[in-house]
Amino acid sequence: MSDAPKKVVLAYSGGLDTSIILKWLQTEYGCEVITFTADLGQGEELEPARQKAELLGIKPENIHIVDVREEFVRDFVFPMFRANAVYEGQYLLGTSIARPLISQHLVKIAQQHGADAVAHGATGKGNDQVRFELSAYALDPAIRVIAPWREWDLTSRTKLIEFAEKHQIPIAKDKRGEAPFSVDANLLHTSSEGKALEDPAAEAPEYVYQRTTSPEDAPDTPEYIEIGFDKGDAVSIDGQAMSPATLLAALNEYGRKHGIGRLDFVENRFVGMKSRGIYETPGGTILLEAHRGIEQITLDAGAGHLKDSLMPRYAELIYNGFWFSPEREMLQAAIDKSQEHVTGTVRLKLYKGSATTVGRWSDHSLYSEAHVTFEDDAGAYDQKDAAGFIRLNALRLKLLAARNARVRQAD
Amino acid sequence: MSDAPKKVVLAYSGGLDTSIILKWLQTEYGCEVITFTADLGQGEELEPARQKAELLGIKPENIHIVDVREEFVRDFVFPMFRANAVYEGQYLLGTSIARPLISQHLVKIAQQHGADAVAHGATGKGNDQVRFELSAYALDPAIRVIAPWREWDLTSRTKLIEFAEKHQIPIAKDKRGEAPFSVDANLLHTSSEGKALEDPAAEAPEYVYQRTTSPEDAPDTPEYIEIGFDKGDAVSIDGQAMSPATLLAALNEYGRKHGIGRLDFVENRFVGMKSRGIYETPGGTILLEAHRGIEQITLDAGAGHLKDSLMPRYAELIYNGFWFSPEREMLQAAIDKSQEHVTGTVRLKLYKGSATTVGRWSDHSLYSEAHVTFEDDAGAYDQKDAAGFIRLNALRLKLLAARNARVRQAD
Amino acid sequence: MSDAPKKVVLAYSGGLDTSIILKWLQTEYGCEVITFTADLGQGEELEPARQKAELLGIKPENIHIVDVREEFVRDFVFPMFRANAVYEGQYLLGTSIARPLISQHLVKIAQQHGADAVAHGATGKGNDQVRFELSAYALDPAIRVIAPWREWDLTSRTKLIEFAEKHQIPIAKDKRGEAPFSVDANLLHTSSEGKALEDPAAEAPEYVYQRTTSPEDAPDTPEYIEIGFDKGDAVSIDGQAMSPATLLAALNEYGRKHGIGRLDFVENRFVGMKSRGIYETPGGTILLEAHRGIEQITLDAGAGHLKDSLMPRYAELIYNGFWFSPEREMLQAAIDKSQEHVTGTVRLKLYKGSATTVGRWSDHSLYSEAHVTFEDDAGAYDQKDAAGFIRLNALRLKLLAARNARVRQAD
Amino acid sequence: MSDAPKKVVLAYSGGLDTSIILKWLQTEYGCEVITFTADLGQGEELEPARQKAELLGIKPENIHIVDVREEFVRDFVFPMFRANAVYEGQYLLGTSIARPLISQHLVKIAQQHGADAVAHGATGKGNDQVRFELSAYALDPAIRVIAPWREWDLTSRTKLIEFAEKHQIPIAKDKRGEAPFSVDANLLHTSSEGKALEDPAAEAPEYVYQRTTSPEDAPDTPEYIEIGFDKGDAVSIDGQAMSPATLLAALNEYGRKHGIGRLDFVENRFVGMKSRGIYETPGGTILLEAHRGIEQITLDAGAGHLKDSLMPRYAELIYNGFWFSPEREMLQAAIDKSQEHVTGTVRLKLYKGSATTVGRWSDHSLYSEAHVTFEDDAGAYDQKDAAGFIRLNALRLKLLAARNARVRQAD
Repeated sequence: MSDAPKKVVLAYSGGLDTSIILKWLQTEYGCEVITFTADLGQGEELEPARQKAELLGIKPENIHIVDVREEFVRDFVFPMFRANAVYEGQYLLGTSIARPLISQHLVKIAQQHGADAVAHGATGKGNDQVRFELSAYALDPAIRVIAPWREWDLTSRTKLIEFAEKHQIPIAKDKRGEAPFSVDANLLHTSSEGKALEDPAAEAPEYVYQRTTSPEDAPDTPEYIEIGFDKGDAVSIDGQAMSPATLLAALNEYGRKHGIGRLDFVENRFVGMKSRGIYETPGGTILLEAHRGIEQITLDAGAGHLKDSLMPRYAELIYNGFWFSPEREMLQAAIDKSQEHVTGTVRLKLYKGSATTVGRWSDHSLYSEAHVTFEDDAGAYDQKDAAGFIRLNALRLKLLAARNARVRQAD
Repeated sequence: MSDAPKKVVLAYSGGLDTSIILKWLQTEYGCEVITFTADLGQGEELEPARQKAELLGIKPENIHIVDVREEFVRDFVFPMFRANAVYEGQYLLGTSIARPLISQHLVKIAQQHGADAVAHGATGKGNDQVRFELSAYALDPAIRVIAPWREWDLTSRTKLIEFAEKHQIPIAKDKRGEAPFSVDANLLHTSSEGKALEDPAAEAPEYVYQRTTSPEDAPDTPEYIEIGFDKGDAVSIDGQAMSPATLLAALNEYGRKHGIGRLDFVENRFVGMKSRGIYETPGGTILLEAHRGIEQITLDAGAGHLKDSLMPRYAELIYNGFWFSPEREMLQAAIDKSQEHVTGTVRLKLYKGSATTVGRWSDHSLYSEAHVTFEDDAGAYDQKDAAGFIRLNALRLKLLAARNARVRQAD
Repeated sequence: MSDAPKKVVLAYSGGLDTSIILKWLQTEYGCEVITFTADLGQGEELEPARQKAELLGIKPENIHIVDVREEFVRDFVFPMFRANAVYEGQYLLGTSIARPLISQHLVKIAQQHGADAVAHGATGKGNDQVRFELSAYALDPAIRVIAPWREWDLTSRTKLIEFAEKHQIPIAKDKRGEAPFSVDANLLHTSSEGKALEDPAAEAPEYVYQRTTSPEDAPDTPEYIEIGFDKGDAVSIDGQAMSPATLLAALNEYGRKHGIGRLDFVENRFVGMKSRGIYETPGGTILLEAHRGIEQITLDAGAGHLKDSLMPRYAELIYNGFWFSPEREMLQAAIDKSQEHVTGTVRLKLYKGSATTVGRWSDHSLYSEAHVTFEDDAGAYDQKDAAGFIRLNALRLKLLAARNARVRQAD
Repeated sequence: MSDAPKKVVLAYSGGLDTSIILKWLQTEYGCEVITFTADLGQGEELEPARQKAELLGIKPENIHIVDVREEFVRDFVFPMFRANAVYEGQYLLGTSIARPLISQHLVKIAQQHGADAVAHGATGKGNDQVRFELSAYALDPAIRVIAPWREWDLTSRTKLIEFAEKHQIPIAKDKRGEAPFSVDANLLHTSSEGKALEDPAAEAPEYVYQRTTSPEDAPDTPEYIEIGFDKGDAVSIDGQAMSPATLLAALNEYGRKHGIGRLDFVENRFVGMKSRGIYETPGGTILLEAHRGIEQITLDAGAGHLKDSLMPRYAELIYNGFWFSPEREMLQAAIDKSQEHVTGTVRLKLYKGSATTVGRWSDHSLYSEAHVTFEDDAGAYDQKDAAGFIRLNALRLKLLAARNARVRQAD
């Protein structure tokens, strides 16, 4: 095959599917395979991935296992949370935001090794293929991306297992049959979709939830925490400073315990179909509520309303895979500009599935008790100003009403 | 006073403050006062308002007590919920949406009676004055609006009580002192603000909540309900058809019981200051979740994303008092257009403060299991199409990356 | 070929390229071909298309030649002009808006004839393929669309000519060689692109312009016309009522004469590349200016600003081929709502390339000389209101400035 | 008057009206007046303003005459042009953009002198009062702004003249009567409005235009110029580097000569009324066209479309006086981010009222002849990709059409 890639960097989890891909790349293209396995906080040991890669014939210098948790939270999750980004009103974009980081590493490793292609294990029906590939192309326009699921003829579980057996790929016992649903996980969230969840009318069974206690089983007593923010990013819990990934991990633990951050959702994929997913974003859900809480007192109305109006587009860009695009960077510049004073502390109540802001304070607060008070405000605000304010705001409405009446009469 | 109004229609609750206004209008302007008292579902008897008005010398034919609950939900609340409107990310606009209805009635009654002015009891610091007045001017450009709180010198509780005593206005015992906070209520929500709540750092005490059980005291067992929708509006609960107001009242009861719809919020008022409010929107919170749930399967992605991007502006217009404005009507036309197929049923789980969609189904569903399935899709979707889709979406990003590299190299 | 279409409706111009497509469909698929030739006002005789179709073996009952000019202007051009739609700041969308109409007819004829496919002559690099196909699929999800340019191997002029000669397709003398550029025309505009125009640095030669006099050759004396509008649509010129297509044709003649509506433009195609086009939109350019002129006095500020903010998205949807999409229809509903009072007359000056509004009047005018006058306004407007208006608009800015100063000092 | 200001910084033009204000401040408040006269490129000598201020008793150290032309263009005009900002589709914001600069100087001088107030000569009906005051309050929340036109009783020309005579203010002969219209000018534009122009149906007489040759009188031969851009800002004409103000002045001369940049416009003022203005923006009109021309080849589609959708809001903010607001700064951050590669050269044709881009080139160009060519593209673009691209874009439309047909059938 004359146009076969020579060296391919594969996003490798160590699981059965990407092991099959690894072997398929070797056999289909006769190419050298380099593996990249990221610790995104998915909660799995990565050393087995190394051993499995070696077993499949990957040279040690071609195996890259990288802890990207801090980078993930600092450079991807936190910037996104500055925007209060939710897709279609509810989804916190936990899968979407991890993909550009993975592509960034794949491309970097490809450049280091002089590889001519990268490969991923996303199917041809989903969003992840788009996110992986748009990011890769945006970072290296000459790179080639191989998506085996769109190319090969291993179109059933049986064929995959046969291929694995034929190539001596170890198969864990529970992987022989179909998984009841498919899972993606990282420090921000766990998503589950497919198969058992494909009927959007049927409630997801409890066993789908892997990361959060059921609200019914959560503690009967609320717990309170205080999250500190600096320029829009969370920096402490209960006064204790933490690195981004440490902080998100701690919030995940609070969220897990109190059953916070579950979402049963039907969304619109970029590729044109609707799909149903079960998401668990325990720490992220707390973080979103807290960020909104601190913005309430530190962000100006004009800035806040502009942010709110930009957010759906920003979230859509991330969902669709355009993290590395000029328009996402433009929106980020605007959002980051707004966060210069989003500094302070939020107090939250965690209880049986909910994280609720119950207090917020800041040296950067714009809240003025002097202005808002029902008591005597000592001249901070002249109520008579409101009369002029309203009259000028009403002027065009009056002119409209008069015009409409005039026209009606003339008809 | 030569430019004094002759006849004034007053938005009259029957409470102490609007009774003082009533009397003040009579004494200050020597004008005839007509009262309008609306049953918006605030949960108070209205006959006492009639008796009190009569006691204050209002002629029976000048007393208007109207049950506007169905009108309120059908013509104001439901159209707004079609938009999934939330102000500043969280507030369901329960006070804002009632004001234009009240003004509409004030203006209509004014025209019936040949009155030259309307009057309301909102203060000069809040949003309600703006909402009342913009609506009134938009409906009758020649109307005059009197806002006694911006005019009179009754600037302390003591002076108000003195005025009431001087004019034989009955004062309930618990009204002599300052109320600990101020309350507004209707079928959609109850808001509490001011005084005891003015410190946004301090958690609101439990006694502020008047309409919802505390989540901690809510039942330990979840309850499930099914809400039916037709063209974007809720029409049934558990298969039982209900009128708009009946349905919302029923949802309020579910929400009350399960502690759903509490919000502790600092918001940006249109008049330029931040204020803190405690909102309870039990039925509305359930309704919003359910409406999102039914849209998930019946609304197209393009329509949904457009709606999401228009929503913040729509919500801002309602918050700021521009219900009767051409731009709100334009947005409504767009939103209503999107709801033609938002028909079907949502199943929700209610539990200790949360209403969660757990299932949805519809004859109008756009969800296609045939397309999304992980199983063999019998040719519904050709995964190879995704390659072209991605490559063309990536083309501009590649051209950008190549350009940027070229420029960097040349520098 | 088992999955070959049986009957195909071809968008047929009668020119060499679509004649080759016609024959190719017959020979490649052995299918029955039905032709659709539209009079969109492109300024060519259509009877030759009929004769040529017959010559190529199309049965008379399979030849559809339809004058769609009124439909085109009334149902596509005018609704679009209500939005003042321009793509990327300057392009009036003359090609884009014709494509959905053609697809609509193709699909309708396919349904009449029981055809299983439609075909078009757009290439695989442009926007038109997208517009044709999205429209067709939106109107008939089961239809098949054949795009020969993406399928066949006639990839050079030489091969096309060979194919034509082999199949006795008549070739006009001037069609043997490469055309210096490619042209599309309809009642709204003429576009020229490709080959001789591919260097965006080089000024387009005068011979490219086919539909407008050069401004330098236009009359040395300005001409004035008055365009009447009713609900956002032009209905008369100089007081003479005209049908939509008649009116646009008349404006085209004015524009042609005065050299109005030329545009040399580099645009972003939906498929990801930039291309350079020369557009001539003589009547449309006058119409856009006039529509803006009448909106100036009849459209409210709130409505107008909302329209302005929606326009780029609306124009993008049309450019990208999403005329028949829910989101375009939502925007249209909003836009149409705004046009209810856009009724009146605009006076324009036409001179050497420019159409300029110089006067406008309307019974629906919102312009109030009483309010705006520098003279005594007899109390229409109280300048003191402006003080309150400004102070409340300034309040948040003051609170911000005070906060920022406070924080700076503390640092 | 106990709350009278002690020291006031007045925006002083040297003309009759601001001289009256100067004297009125002295007599009404007994305060010390400091004058600020800016050379904004309005084309008037400023030394007479100094002499007149001295004549009116201003101490030399209290007279500030500052050439702000470079600052005006560099820090205000150019940033705004990066956004292609036009208000309500057509107005280039020439007056709006000068006001924040003036307020910035007033506030700075007030702080230097320890003044407690600033004053301006804008009336209570217009936008300028809002722009002056919002800017001042945003820069110094403690400043007081005095707007004599909203306060005094000099409500007719006669009274003004009497006041001037009484206080020995020199009155130029042509200032005794009413001016036929009111004029504002700076390096970017000249606006004329009021009185003779108040009928929007009547064409503005030629004598209103002060800054541009009539297109009819402009040269019969086109002239070509080349404007160089660097990161979104114009930096050279015909290869000659120029400072911002020098460049704009040169463009003004080109525009004047060729009759470019006239606009007869009815706009919506922020204070709620419509007004008619005649604007002349000769250099700015050329600059806008040129900036669009260079963006055509250097700006990515995603960035460009986002910019287009943000522009109306950005322009509205500037028009309404919110230059110094967080939301304008957020938008500016996004816009500036987009301009990093907007570098290159545009060739324009100037002829009888029009400035037209006829060529553009850049080392930063994204235009790829290899991709767009009608000729063989050597594999740069695979036309088959378009099929998948279209099919996935169409998927949701097909699902919609199928759903709608299904529902129709069921009805």
